[in-house]
Amino acid sequence: MINKLKIALIQLALPDLPAGIEREIRLAADGGARLVLLQELHDGPYFCQTEATVQFDRAEPVPGPASERLGRLAAELGIVIVGSLFERRAAGLYHNTAVVLDSDGRLAGRYRKMHVPDDPGFQEKFYFTPGDLGFRPVETAVGRLGVLVCWDQWFPEAARLMALAGADLLLYPTAIGWDDADDAAEQARQLEAWTTVQRGHAIANGLPLLACNRCGFEPAPSGTSGGIRFWGHSFACGPQGELLARAGEAPQTLLVDVDLARSERVRRIWPFLRDRRIDAYGDLLKRFLD
Amino acid sequence: MINKLKIALIQLALPDLPAGIEREIRLAADGGARLVLLQELHDGPYFCQTEATVQFDRAEPVPGPASERLGRLAAELGIVIVGSLFERRAAGLYHNTAVVLDSDGRLAGRYRKMHVPDDPGFQEKFYFTPGDLGFRPVETAVGRLGVLVCWDQWFPEAARLMALAGADLLLYPTAIGWDDADDAAEQARQLEAWTTVQRGHAIANGLPLLACNRCGFEPAPSGTSGGIRFWGHSFACGPQGELLARAGEAPQTLLVDVDLARSERVRRIWPFLRDRRIDAYGDLLKRFLD
Repeated sequence: MINKLKIALIQLALPDLPAGIEREIRLAADGGARLVLLQELHDGPYFCQTEATVQFDRAEPVPGPASERLGRLAAELGIVIVGSLFERRAAGLYHNTAVVLDSDGRLAGRYRKMHVPDDPGFQEKFYFTPGDLGFRPVETAVGRLGVLVCWDQWFPEAARLMALAGADLLLYPTAIGWDDADDAAEQARQLEAWTTVQRGHAIANGLPLLACNRCGFEPAPSGTSGGIRFWGHSFACGPQGELLARAGEAPQTLLVDVDLARSERVRRIWPFLRDRRIDAYGDLLKRFLD
Repeated sequence: MINKLKIALIQLALPDLPAGIEREIRLAADGGARLVLLQELHDGPYFCQTEATVQFDRAEPVPGPASERLGRLAAELGIVIVGSLFERRAAGLYHNTAVVLDSDGRLAGRYRKMHVPDDPGFQEKFYFTPGDLGFRPVETAVGRLGVLVCWDQWFPEAARLMALAGADLLLYPTAIGWDDADDAAEQARQLEAWTTVQRGHAIANGLPLLACNRCGFEPAPSGTSGGIRFWGHSFACGPQGELLARAGEAPQTLLVDVDLARSERVRRIWPFLRDRRIDAYGDLLKRFLD
């Protein structure tokens, strides 16, 4: 396994999508990145603010043109790329799918978003069938990547399952933002909660974690709501949850060096995997204990 | 259910144990606290730095003199008290047990520490049989208390199971500190990780969380190690992980107002319990997925 890994998080806003993606990937590779993480639905707008069947036209098979473009770029640059696509699996069956292109350009694997949100402005249950591939890391030239997507980031179960399956890193393409109708204190709590819960997953599992979030304001197509101000703040933390790098609200490519060997050192002093009470966790498979 | 609840966290150091406990509980009740949370093994020193059979003499049955003292105080003051005792269940069978005394003095319930650590200076696997009561909140006059103990705080499973069982609050008596041999950066990471992972549980479960930690330096009885500098920093956070109050390293009784009604408002915007993929969590019951 590689010990020191330079990773790029490419945080972009409309109208620089998808044009900015290839440009920033090339710059990141020039800067030494061997792994690039893109934001959720990186090829265009966040189209889930309203429910409209025409949006299904955006979906593509995987493999398909979008994943193949990323694969060609990965092979040319000799890097691993984690992107996020709207996958058309069959007529009327679509997923929010992360794709992992290995450094030889091959589609090394995919992850279909398991936890799908649905709240005002994020109508994802209309568009995305919940994933059916489970929580399996993808083996690549730079390690076993535990790729999850956005809403998954609130679920400790998802991170834990990736860790138990041997992930070396936890990676989250995301698209989360503020409702301008919320006051500044609520907005600050939301951003801090989003960062904190993910740092918590890093700590609980003794793994580095990287989240790449969309930024910029996107109006609601219908004008029926106030739109979403994607808050950026992509970040990387180490296996003690310690922040290694963090973006602001503006478009930015964040380059960060991650020491993968540190995970084992941390797990030796905090051996949580040793002490899990698997004999007493059965009720985690229930909805609620009424 | 009570909406606004004033809670006291009593963070003390030797030699003010156990004398300070009753004094500070009375002061907290005078200050309006209706729930008091004590630190782990609140009646005396943290005796687990070395393995010595004579230390088992400290253990008492539950109910027993120590729990009854707390019960009389709870009844007199009309408050709920959560303490932490060394329970003697039978000869050669001991637990690290949290006790919950209701405002009428009755032993409302107990929690036997499920995750038991063992590392240099924290020889708990020698002293404490892992709990066999599972993760069940205790019903009291101030709500359903999800009481966990120290090492449990690193395990998202424990907090989740308490939430699924209907806990209104997550409460952790703890005893954690620094090794003076670690450098300042490592010590800062450890304290921050400890706080962050617990704030993460609050967020993931939409519940307030309070942790009461020991403070002060306690030398190792044998002189074979450097002792433990218990780091204090007891804190309370709300259901978005937002810090409500936080102590420093010194002895302190922290009084904090918690709005229990806020949990439901937060869970309506972040309905994680709705979206858990219980169909896909089976591997959480495994040690590792080799």
